[in-house]
Amino acid sequence: MSDYPASIDIMEEGPREGFQIEPGPIPTADKIALIDALSATGVQRIQVASFVNPKLVPGWADAEAVVAGFTPRAGVTYGALWFNPRGLERTLAFKDRLSVAGSITVSASEAFSKQNLNRDRPAQLDAMRSHVTEHLARGVAVNRVSVQAAFGCNFSGTVTTEQTVAAVVDAMALAAETGCAITRISIADSMGWANPAQVERVVGAVRSRWPEPAITLHLHDTRGLGIACALAGLRMGVRNFDAAVGGLGGCPFARHPGAPGNIATEELVFLCEEMGIATGIDLEALLEASALAERIVGHRLPSAMLRGGGLAAHRVKAA
Amino acid sequence: MSDYPASIDIMEEGPREGFQIEPGPIPTADKIALIDALSATGVQRIQVASFVNPKLVPGWADAEAVVAGFTPRAGVTYGALWFNPRGLERTLAFKDRLSVAGSITVSASEAFSKQNLNRDRPAQLDAMRSHVTEHLARGVAVNRVSVQAAFGCNFSGTVTTEQTVAAVVDAMALAAETGCAITRISIADSMGWANPAQVERVVGAVRSRWPEPAITLHLHDTRGLGIACALAGLRMGVRNFDAAVGGLGGCPFARHPGAPGNIATEELVFLCEEMGIATGIDLEALLEASALAERIVGHRLPSAMLRGGGLAAHRVKAA
Repeated sequence: MSDYPASIDIMEEGPREGFQIEPGPIPTADKIALIDALSATGVQRIQVASFVNPKLVPGWADAEAVVAGFTPRAGVTYGALWFNPRGLERTLAFKDRLSVAGSITVSASEAFSKQNLNRDRPAQLDAMRSHVTEHLARGVAVNRVSVQAAFGCNFSGTVTTEQTVAAVVDAMALAAETGCAITRISIADSMGWANPAQVERVVGAVRSRWPEPAITLHLHDTRGLGIACALAGLRMGVRNFDAAVGGLGGCPFARHPGAPGNIATEELVFLCEEMGIATGIDLEALLEASALAERIVGHRLPSAMLRGGGLAAHRVKAA
Repeated sequence: MSDYPASIDIMEEGPREGFQIEPGPIPTADKIALIDALSATGVQRIQVASFVNPKLVPGWADAEAVVAGFTPRAGVTYGALWFNPRGLERTLAFKDRLSVAGSITVSASEAFSKQNLNRDRPAQLDAMRSHVTEHLARGVAVNRVSVQAAFGCNFSGTVTTEQTVAAVVDAMALAAETGCAITRISIADSMGWANPAQVERVVGAVRSRWPEPAITLHLHDTRGLGIACALAGLRMGVRNFDAAVGGLGGCPFARHPGAPGNIATEELVFLCEEMGIATGIDLEALLEASALAERIVGHRLPSAMLRGGGLAAHRVKAA
């Protein structure tokens, strides 16, 4: 068991991911209630909103109201997502409540980048160069590299380890050129293609070439392998994971509606805690937050654990 | 990757498990249609029916009609479940279509045995002694040991590796006493308590003490760790798994209705095939059988992959 980390650190993405994809309008008060419930679970980081164009993503038209409305809790870091200077400005208006740092985002699949952003590889790097410059001009550090489609792509098929490493090479070169110190490399299975053996290969290749930055795994459970891929990451010593309470969020790239998106936070916490890996999270409180999320969206969330429940009550009864 | 087996062998339990737990009556023709669809996928073994008391399990009142009605396919082994001499007789009436061999079933948790069968450990061993004798008297070999609640129990809490080994010791002693050669030890996570590290410990302990019999893992996905536990089994070289198409079956012991039961066959097949472990199963045909199962039961099945779909179409499109 010696390869496993002693503890992990989870970025809870449920509020941001979940309220973006839901068809109906979610009341601002409900979004705030979920963030506050998550704050009480012990989770280290929460992404609370997306500062995106409300015409394109009406579900986040109330981003300012949500960020102004939640109750920050000591020890929890709150973040948001933005894509352009306007989004960065809106985020910076809340820099007393939000941790604001920039990311160089690249895609291991050029086809995904073209489909998603209408940019080929050079165009994406140009866009990222402007992105970095805008951040630095506002005094915002850029310390993270994020690789989308790092395992496979609905538009170009399987992504090789070499392609993923090449994407990181691009991003690290841009970081060096702009004087940014990268402390984290996020590897994202954006469309749910990863398998555990591939996670081991990709994490191993990235770590051996860039041993210093911490690796974050952003895994999707589109085809049911998300937690097995997290296990593979843990075996490689990865200790940073993104996850979404209840599996909130769904998968915008899946062929069928209703497919799970991000791995469910409670399943990741259960996996770790049962194996003696500390998460700092109260699983029962997290399951309550997950049930709250399900009531808010008004339909069944993908988390198996939300149905199966935790073991604490059984253990108490048995003791 | 060298610990992984080159191929695995799956026992498909969906028809038997699924049609037992569904509340509404399932037409016999639908049961047969699913078995025939599964036969065409390449799966090695299918449990097609339960010969149980129709007063207790009305869902299997048509066991004879189902077993007489499906179309056996060369290369596929068909089995059934029974618990008593009457069930064995009913099974033996179809010995031209069904593989009939007996099992010594024990529980690693005495509390589970008491709750489920109203028998303590000595009473369960006495019952198994009679069970074996009845089989041998009818010329039916008993070649399998099956350990229920091998990882944890809703009534007694966590089950230790030592408890599980002790249950196997009991069963192997009975096998020796009755002259039965055991070729397979099935280790069942009946209530969804297992974690991957525990799977490694238990499989390791059982194999080091009984190196000859093949180990089968019967895993439940009640709390979302089923496929991660299967991965742990694969890493230990386990090559026999039970699974249920679509996750058909649910979990009779879970606290909440709707919790997954057995791991979904398509997720296990996807896990293996993506890592280069052969299953002999056509995943696209299996996904069609899974969709058929969902139409038959008339409600959403737990399989994530049934929502997310396979990668074959994406790969073809990308090529």
